[in-house]
Amino acid sequence: MKILDKINTPEQLRLMDKTKLPELCEEIRQTIIHTISKTGGHLGSSLGAVELITALHYVFNTPEDKIVFDTGHQTYAHKLLTGRQNKFNTIRKKGGLSGFLKIYESPYDTFGAGHASTALSAALGMAMARDQKKQKYKVVAVVADGSMTGGLAYEALQNAGQLKPNMLVILNDNQMFISQRVGALGSFLTKLLTAKYVTAAEAEATRIMSNFEIGNNAIKLAHRARAILFSGALFAELGFRYYGPVNGNDITEMTEVLSQVKDIPGPVILHVVTKKGKGYPPAEQKPTKYHGLGIFDADTGEVIGKSNKITYTKAFSDALLKLAENDPAITAITAAMPEGTGLSAFRDAHPDRYYDVGIAEEHAATFAAGLATQGIKPVVALYSSFSQRCYDQIQQDICLQNLPVVFALDRAGLVGEDGPTHHGAFDLSLFRNIPNLLIAAPADENELQHLLKTALESKKTFILRYPRGSGEGVEMDKELKTLPIGKGEWLKKGKDLTILAVGNRVYPALKAAEILKEKGIDCGVINMRFIKPIDVKIIKEAIKQSPKIITVEDNVLAGGFGSAVAEILADNNLKAELLRLGIKDEFVEHGKQAELYEETGLDAKGISAAILKRFK
Amino acid sequence: MKILDKINTPEQLRLMDKTKLPELCEEIRQTIIHTISKTGGHLGSSLGAVELITALHYVFNTPEDKIVFDTGHQTYAHKLLTGRQNKFNTIRKKGGLSGFLKIYESPYDTFGAGHASTALSAALGMAMARDQKKQKYKVVAVVADGSMTGGLAYEALQNAGQLKPNMLVILNDNQMFISQRVGALGSFLTKLLTAKYVTAAEAEATRIMSNFEIGNNAIKLAHRARAILFSGALFAELGFRYYGPVNGNDITEMTEVLSQVKDIPGPVILHVVTKKGKGYPPAEQKPTKYHGLGIFDADTGEVIGKSNKITYTKAFSDALLKLAENDPAITAITAAMPEGTGLSAFRDAHPDRYYDVGIAEEHAATFAAGLATQGIKPVVALYSSFSQRCYDQIQQDICLQNLPVVFALDRAGLVGEDGPTHHGAFDLSLFRNIPNLLIAAPADENELQHLLKTALESKKTFILRYPRGSGEGVEMDKELKTLPIGKGEWLKKGKDLTILAVGNRVYPALKAAEILKEKGIDCGVINMRFIKPIDVKIIKEAIKQSPKIITVEDNVLAGGFGSAVAEILADNNLKAELLRLGIKDEFVEHGKQAELYEETGLDAKGISAAILKRFK
Repeated sequence: MKILDKINTPEQLRLMDKTKLPELCEEIRQTIIHTISKTGGHLGSSLGAVELITALHYVFNTPEDKIVFDTGHQTYAHKLLTGRQNKFNTIRKKGGLSGFLKIYESPYDTFGAGHASTALSAALGMAMARDQKKQKYKVVAVVADGSMTGGLAYEALQNAGQLKPNMLVILNDNQMFISQRVGALGSFLTKLLTAKYVTAAEAEATRIMSNFEIGNNAIKLAHRARAILFSGALFAELGFRYYGPVNGNDITEMTEVLSQVKDIPGPVILHVVTKKGKGYPPAEQKPTKYHGLGIFDADTGEVIGKSNKITYTKAFSDALLKLAENDPAITAITAAMPEGTGLSAFRDAHPDRYYDVGIAEEHAATFAAGLATQGIKPVVALYSSFSQRCYDQIQQDICLQNLPVVFALDRAGLVGEDGPTHHGAFDLSLFRNIPNLLIAAPADENELQHLLKTALESKKTFILRYPRGSGEGVEMDKELKTLPIGKGEWLKKGKDLTILAVGNRVYPALKAAEILKEKGIDCGVINMRFIKPIDVKIIKEAIKQSPKIITVEDNVLAGGFGSAVAEILADNNLKAELLRLGIKDEFVEHGKQAELYEETGLDAKGISAAILKRFK
Repeated sequence: MKILDKINTPEQLRLMDKTKLPELCEEIRQTIIHTISKTGGHLGSSLGAVELITALHYVFNTPEDKIVFDTGHQTYAHKLLTGRQNKFNTIRKKGGLSGFLKIYESPYDTFGAGHASTALSAALGMAMARDQKKQKYKVVAVVADGSMTGGLAYEALQNAGQLKPNMLVILNDNQMFISQRVGALGSFLTKLLTAKYVTAAEAEATRIMSNFEIGNNAIKLAHRARAILFSGALFAELGFRYYGPVNGNDITEMTEVLSQVKDIPGPVILHVVTKKGKGYPPAEQKPTKYHGLGIFDADTGEVIGKSNKITYTKAFSDALLKLAENDPAITAITAAMPEGTGLSAFRDAHPDRYYDVGIAEEHAATFAAGLATQGIKPVVALYSSFSQRCYDQIQQDICLQNLPVVFALDRAGLVGEDGPTHHGAFDLSLFRNIPNLLIAAPADENELQHLLKTALESKKTFILRYPRGSGEGVEMDKELKTLPIGKGEWLKKGKDLTILAVGNRVYPALKAAEILKEKGIDCGVINMRFIKPIDVKIIKEAIKQSPKIITVEDNVLAGGFGSAVAEILADNNLKAELLRLGIKDEFVEHGKQAELYEETGLDAKGISAAILKRFK
């Protein structure tokens, strides 16, 4: 029997002998590899954090002590140690465990997160609440170095340094090229600082290890190893005591160091170095590929069963490259997602006009605005869900100034297994209220490439949003075309009613029309293509055809595309019966994309059923 | 004749003898004081920046060289020096000069801004565009220390330090208590660094003034003077060369220092210390009061003609204090706006549960989420327009986790003289799409206090939004009441049609009904009070009364309150004619609040006229 089988709660873990921990960690690691090979998931980060997480639950009194993980995709070990072993094989499946943390999934999940850089703010809130209520529990925030590039993390650090509550921040530095080299020296330094000095007389300790000096040493150390983004000096400036770096993949060292820093008063940063993909050679060698992935062969690391259709991401990537060849002003910006957004090809072809700004969507937008004032044509490629972070910048810095910036929003609609933190289910409602902005959604990957050309030629702020995953498998035109702005397209006329669909719901709408045909209903379909400006003329045509229209979108109903159509009916005093299909006013959980579209009634079957129900 | 009269462009300024600059600065200062006393405006920051701005235009070749000001309310001297003297008395008036910078107002306004912390990102964009296009102009960002608390500024600094273009950042440190004390030493240091070492051989200079050492000295210096937020070490970490602090109110010194730093390659930070309100004793003594204000007596500094009605801000402030007395869990958060939001009274009464997090709306929201997980009842008080910055945090960190946080959004609707960067004209559209969220808008200041109680008792995420300025002058109930959630209120029934109004458009709607009555039209009025959940029942009652309904809101029409009503008509298949009145799909310029509501057709006259036109 495995040790892991006997650990149902962290309390049981804490009863274990320290010497057994390495074996337990190895079991956790193997469980993660074998389970994720069958379910897909965020492998690399979770493998890197096994010892860190085990040590945290071993040393801290969870769940009374609060551990707040940033983003949460590195926390599979945490799930295994907190009573969720028997459900672990349901991870990311519909109705199963979330791939991230969820405040309602477990009392050990103190704060849910899918978007980066939130843990410090949340943990600071918990620490101040504790102090207000005169309680005593510990608060620990675990933040990966990537998340530290976000402005939100910095705002929180700064505030924490001012408020100075007891609070431990674990900076989980999972850059792969550092661990071995600085591990020994780093852990030596850490032990020295924590064991020898801190436990010495308080005054003496404070004098010797004045924050600034510690920072200073750490910088020199860090500079020797690599160009480190943050260093002790920065943290010291912000009112933190800094310790590290320490080898986060050594469970013995981690438990020892955590025991030592845990009672240091005030805000403390412990810089922990871990290896992404640790213990699984394919993931260690290709950390980007194994960051988040689908099903794979656990023995070889080979990914299984990829679709032959090109993805929307690839269609965007190819089209951008093609357009950039003939236009040196075209410039690409990513917020730490070159692979996910498909910009890596652009990066390799045009490194001189490619910018990775870090996890910093706000800056990405305003930086693009600055570029645009000087005649550059920026294309900012983000995930739809993360673009929510730069609404204000898009409105104030770009649209108010009428600057031509193209936003390519990937992962619009329901994304599937990543769930409610990653669904791009709000962008139409979110951005539709901004003046001077165009919004379009292609029905397929071929239309995507034409719309990208259209966007760049529009000389307007232009949001082009398209779904995650494979396209429709349509043929890709060799030549890129400019499509008429604000114009929809009749795909099929019908005398009984008309479906107005946008984006990835156009093909399901066509299929729904086929289902309805079998029931004797003649249903037209329009690919609206543009959400803003919306094609009022084609809506009038549809109503003339038949005063029964249906809108279908992969966005929330509140304020979305169907809402825009309802506005047009009112504003033009058009008499028509309107059925709006889209995502209801609730967060959609995780599951396969197809399952979620079925559940929300937005696949062909659901669309036709809703139409039958309303119009009988 | 004044010198200023002869300066129509910075080119003319640059032809002036250096010795005349102090006199010119004094003229600029007097012009600002006397003009703003008659127009109202941002006095303190603009007075503090006179010498800095004059020196910038004297040393840099504007507009070819690009100066990007953060926020822009400190730039009155810039307006006076760039061809806008003869229009300066129109500042903040309808059709007149903007109180901020505007890309379309002048070629010298390189980037508009009203929201803080954007200048670094925009300037970096301009610098990279220049380098991509192999041009040579200089780029300067002028950022106040307050703006440096925003995460966006940090994201940009970090990116700039990595890209390392030639770019000068002026950190305009306008804390009032520093200038004299460090001025002499600071300028000595700066001159030493810039003149002696930088002009020396490159290798030697680099060795002697290695970034880190410069930072180090600056920190020690700064620490002696005050607890400084940023210091050289931080900037050095982020790849900047740091110089300063230097006395920004000494024009001779400023021109000299700028001449020296202007050609230093790579990203450079010059730390300039200025005094807010400089040269105007009332403003020097009370910098907060004179930050932004209405008309005042230039001789005495007394503010003229304040309304006797209490403001919405005051009603909120009083109600919060009252509620907090009996509930120790109620906690207040501001993003650097204790006076503007009315939280200063709460701060003074309950310093232990009051947080000013800096200009950091994102952190304010996620920090509140952390507090709420532990049973604290946070009230986050923001301006509506600035709340746009934390949409993602409200959605992901608060509503997805169903946490009870109250957002008190002041300055909703059209704010008046501050114009399009400050209008709170989007919040209803922006937030209405988020599940698990309630949104309410009081018709008057009395209702505001009851809604605050209602919000705190709701145990939900609750957005309470209300306008800038005076209330309706209604009597304030002594006892606070809990209002029914999601329920509107008939103010008046009418047989011909019904106006559904929200927030500060309720009273104009009532007046519009009176106007219509004179024309023989019997018009009902409903105070909807809640935008989410919306009162479907009362809408059905209205339609039963008469199938002609009108929505009125101080929000954009796209996706706003009227849009929600249009959705309800469609979803419930209600047959009614709907006229939606609100802000059209364009940015509204500045002017008096009343003028803007007239212009947008949302005052009583406009509402009644629109109704007559549509329903005849």
